[in-house]
Amino acid sequence: MNKVYLIGGGATKIGEHWEKSLRDLFVEAALKAVDSAEISLKDIEAVYVGNMSSGELQGQEHLGSLMATWLGIPGVAAAKVEAACASGGVAFHQAYLAVASGLYDCVLVGGVEKMTDAIIYDVTAALIMADDYEYVAFTGASFVGLNAIVYRYYMEKFGVKQEDIALFAVHDHKYAVKNPYAQYQFAVSLEKVLESPNVADPIKLFECAPVGDGSAALVICSEDFAKKLGKDFLVQVAASTVATDTISLTNRRDLATLEATVKAANRAYRIAKISVEDIDVIEVHDAFTILGVLHLEDLGFAEKGQGWKLLKEGELEKNAKIPTNMSGGLKARGHPVGSTGVYQIFDIYLQLIGEAPNQVDSAEIGLAQSVGGVGGTVAINILRRVK
Amino acid sequence: MNKVYLIGGGATKIGEHWEKSLRDLFVEAALKAVDSAEISLKDIEAVYVGNMSSGELQGQEHLGSLMATWLGIPGVAAAKVEAACASGGVAFHQAYLAVASGLYDCVLVGGVEKMTDAIIYDVTAALIMADDYEYVAFTGASFVGLNAIVYRYYMEKFGVKQEDIALFAVHDHKYAVKNPYAQYQFAVSLEKVLESPNVADPIKLFECAPVGDGSAALVICSEDFAKKLGKDFLVQVAASTVATDTISLTNRRDLATLEATVKAANRAYRIAKISVEDIDVIEVHDAFTILGVLHLEDLGFAEKGQGWKLLKEGELEKNAKIPTNMSGGLKARGHPVGSTGVYQIFDIYLQLIGEAPNQVDSAEIGLAQSVGGVGGTVAINILRRVK
Repeated sequence: MNKVYLIGGGATKIGEHWEKSLRDLFVEAALKAVDSAEISLKDIEAVYVGNMSSGELQGQEHLGSLMATWLGIPGVAAAKVEAACASGGVAFHQAYLAVASGLYDCVLVGGVEKMTDAIIYDVTAALIMADDYEYVAFTGASFVGLNAIVYRYYMEKFGVKQEDIALFAVHDHKYAVKNPYAQYQFAVSLEKVLESPNVADPIKLFECAPVGDGSAALVICSEDFAKKLGKDFLVQVAASTVATDTISLTNRRDLATLEATVKAANRAYRIAKISVEDIDVIEVHDAFTILGVLHLEDLGFAEKGQGWKLLKEGELEKNAKIPTNMSGGLKARGHPVGSTGVYQIFDIYLQLIGEAPNQVDSAEIGLAQSVGGVGGTVAINILRRVK
Repeated sequence: MNKVYLIGGGATKIGEHWEKSLRDLFVEAALKAVDSAEISLKDIEAVYVGNMSSGELQGQEHLGSLMATWLGIPGVAAAKVEAACASGGVAFHQAYLAVASGLYDCVLVGGVEKMTDAIIYDVTAALIMADDYEYVAFTGASFVGLNAIVYRYYMEKFGVKQEDIALFAVHDHKYAVKNPYAQYQFAVSLEKVLESPNVADPIKLFECAPVGDGSAALVICSEDFAKKLGKDFLVQVAASTVATDTISLTNRRDLATLEATVKAANRAYRIAKISVEDIDVIEVHDAFTILGVLHLEDLGFAEKGQGWKLLKEGELEKNAKIPTNMSGGLKARGHPVGSTGVYQIFDIYLQLIGEAPNQVDSAEIGLAQSVGGVGGTVAINILRRVK
């Protein structure tokens, strides 16, 4: 495989962008990424767009051609990649393969989602399309309801209290304060989280990632292309993997294990030739607090049933054992679904180039984990700073 | 780049499959492809799903995880790829890159679309999402209406009569008679076509590809994997390219040229090291008769304004100058949009292994052209039979 480097990134602030359309958000992030990479738009040979619901929410498909047009570079190769809330991470994987294959030298990958002024369809109805329509969505189950089942199961099985899981929201908000891209740049207390209304028992409102609009974009390239830029150091994509699990919880062996995370992570560690201890900073997909805890375990940072202890004991803080969600995570940076996976990789990239809002000391290896559905698809992308 | 081989394919008949759901169609085609490749499902490492409108029509996204689940192989990598009506051709390109990169040895790519019992949204409204919603669809333009503009422009500019373009429908139907997968296995006369009702003047009903359900799937693999199968000959993917154009006609330099076809085809010829004369058989994306004519020109088989002469003079017939749409094309084999690009490659594959319903003598090199929107995205895939 050809080596692949990440040479620039950009993003919009996440929020309720009533004045900006889907394309405005994408183009804003893409142009920032191109500027940051110090390349020209003409260098881009392919555009990948990670997005889940533009058809249902904006009445717009064919985002590859649309975004290439609005970037002023029609002619390039382009595609939309969809894998529910993992669309961004999986789009990055496709962009990675495009460069790794040798067919493309310089590729733009952006994630975009506009959720706040849906004109065609309802956001909650669009999101449950991540699960099986015929067997699950049809029953009236909502996405938060499915996560509530996992949450309750985990608490019962391992005797864990909700306050030790809900703490993930407090953690995320604490770090979002300094992130200029974050939707919620303020802290919340555990009391606030636990006092917030039930959405689907036991999940409280403040344990849920918010609805928001946003786009993040990255430029990746081949070794030859990267070396011509003459930078002091580079950020290499050390591994990029995707794995699936059954789309619905009903078919899982264990409700408390997200096997797609286990498979994708283990494969990525082998490819990157690292062990979990080598990782300096991570972004995990905590669309609900319980998922953050599960993912810490399934990524290998804790034994099953013990992930909440890392949180409680401060091991996820900056410069602690495994600095986690220094961006503010899905809860507070925000979660415009199809763009989130790209935001996460951008956040890790900023850590490795030393420009993150909550900079971890001498971060050299970082991991971003992007999840679709309740673990139906997981993308793991590992970045490494190299000379 | 690593070499990539096509080792098996399968498809459902295209039609109104009221008794089969989206997943049923995909699984049927995928299992046929796996059987035809003489491999085991366990050999598959990644699943690509080409689909345009499952969200709008079935209320279902996340097709990667869904189809992996229903194939009984959750765990594999998976993604949905969308590029409007080119979704199938572009999904094949992504699958190709996955193997060409060296990360995957054996990949399944299937296209699927179920259009006849849309439960969420209307098919015509879903299809116009291939164009710009904010500037075009919003005006009430339909997809056939946009093609009617191109049709009228072409007739006026080059002084061509409708009967010389509408003949493409007659050509397609003639060859669909023997294709067991075709939606319409019967011939039509030019009189019938010209007497059929106007859909969007000048386009007649019988000049339009029909609405239908269907799925086609292919298995592709690396050289090592292919050689282990011990076959007498192999079908190599000699080139796979994608190009875009502006998503809307309003921004085009020339309404009668589909530049994305020109760009993608020329790049593919260079990569495959062939000229247009070397090609033995093609499938072109004639969603409307006029598009078939334009594509012959933009692929390089005729000068601009002259494509209709190939049709009229019999040069598209079996064993004539350039045998075209031996499957029955979009008009008569059918056009379940996101699956069509995969059907086309499957049809070319059958030609190269000598098992096509309208077999061209000693076909060694074939080309499939898949188009999204009115030329907003074009995928070109060239296959070559090798020892």
